[in-house]
Amino acid sequence: MEQVEFTIEGRNAVIEAYRSGRTIDKLYIQDGCQDGPVMTIKREARKQDTLIKYVTKERLDQLSETGRHQGVIACAAAYAYVEVEDILQVAKEKGESPFVILLDNIEDPHNLGAIIRTANLAGAHGVIIPKNRAVGLTATVAKASAGALNYTPVAKVTNLSKTIEALKKEGLWFVCADMDGTVMYDLDLKGPIGLVIGSEGEGVGRLVKEKCDLTALIPMKGNIDSLNASVAAGVLAYEIVRQRRG
Amino acid sequence: MEQVEFTIEGRNAVIEAYRSGRTIDKLYIQDGCQDGPVMTIKREARKQDTLIKYVTKERLDQLSETGRHQGVIACAAAYAYVEVEDILQVAKEKGESPFVILLDNIEDPHNLGAIIRTANLAGAHGVIIPKNRAVGLTATVAKASAGALNYTPVAKVTNLSKTIEALKKEGLWFVCADMDGTVMYDLDLKGPIGLVIGSEGEGVGRLVKEKCDLTALIPMKGNIDSLNASVAAGVLAYEIVRQRRG
Repeated sequence: MEQVEFTIEGRNAVIEAYRSGRTIDKLYIQDGCQDGPVMTIKREARKQDTLIKYVTKERLDQLSETGRHQGVIACAAAYAYVEVEDILQVAKEKGESPFVILLDNIEDPHNLGAIIRTANLAGAHGVIIPKNRAVGLTATVAKASAGALNYTPVAKVTNLSKTIEALKKEGLWFVCADMDGTVMYDLDLKGPIGLVIGSEGEGVGRLVKEKCDLTALIPMKGNIDSLNASVAAGVLAYEIVRQRRG
Repeated sequence: MEQVEFTIEGRNAVIEAYRSGRTIDKLYIQDGCQDGPVMTIKREARKQDTLIKYVTKERLDQLSETGRHQGVIACAAAYAYVEVEDILQVAKEKGESPFVILLDNIEDPHNLGAIIRTANLAGAHGVIIPKNRAVGLTATVAKASAGALNYTPVAKVTNLSKTIEALKKEGLWFVCADMDGTVMYDLDLKGPIGLVIGSEGEGVGRLVKEKCDLTALIPMKGNIDSLNASVAAGVLAYEIVRQRRG
């Protein structure tokens, strides 16, 4: 499952990458490029819901390792993503109630890695991240996960709200962390559960929050607003561990 | 009282510094920055008569230690370390059982910052770090603390074992995290307590561990060895919060 992170440069190389089924996290295209091969790449990108960024030639030159990008650079995942169903399958095989951690746009690779590490140790069956904006499975993430990325499957989805809806039909309940929630110790977090962690700056998005069944408050006594996202994920994941062990 | 040279970088960190009453000697703002947070900072700067210098992005990049200044760098009066007695005094003034977090050679500034942030929110009265090897209160630590460094006192001591001995005479019990411990939920963590967190690579040192009264095990179900140090600190600190709230 382990793969080397890399960027793919040049039109043919990027088209090949798409045709071989490789997951592309992000695509940089030079402003104004409209020729046939680039249009083909854009079509493939739309099929895969790849995030496309239009940038200047200067920016591409900076990003380029080979110096021959021909107006296109793709960033491929360092690790293979799984499907959401694969995560449920892991829980089923272990004979455990599903426990999934969903990340609403975590942007810091150290946080993403630390959360995958926590997911592994807290016994979560997998992690779900959104396709857009959020950081993907880069080499930095893999390092910060301290090896957990080799064991804990990560799925990437187009729309986190829709994934939550689909998983509700599989019997999961969803809890997100927010300031206006119920103190986490007073919630029942024992059943099949999806734990939703918001981004570093903005917390859980409104649309995603509306899909959640429960809002958990981590008690806070101090003078500042919030815990680091990976610490908050750890505290909540271990509250789930505590409630489930009884 | 030891002092550290200090810059504060990033909008939220600078706003927090002003709001906590910290003296800012000088403020660097990127030419042309006019958004809400920057205007808030300018207002605070005028109130305090801070000297404002408008500079180019390139100049800010040069001045930046963290590489993420977001257009604002403040030069603050040095962050002061407190004495261990000052931390006990904080607890006394609040009429609370002392709760101190001791870090045995945390070397990653992001982890140190995140732990100070957690200490603030979990209601710990202060953080104690050793003088040697460990990271000190740098700009990266301050930014990672998300402003908590303005509120939560940090003491720096020559010998952590001796500090533990001294604090035992003040009635504190000490708990460290290790694999051979008792599951944390089964320990009594309600009294005056010192929570000892080990370094990223090596955990809690032998001499320090021998001084501890209790060894807490964070239950781990996964395939890897340990949580990120700041996540482990968060999980343990919040187990203390949970037990103390009853």
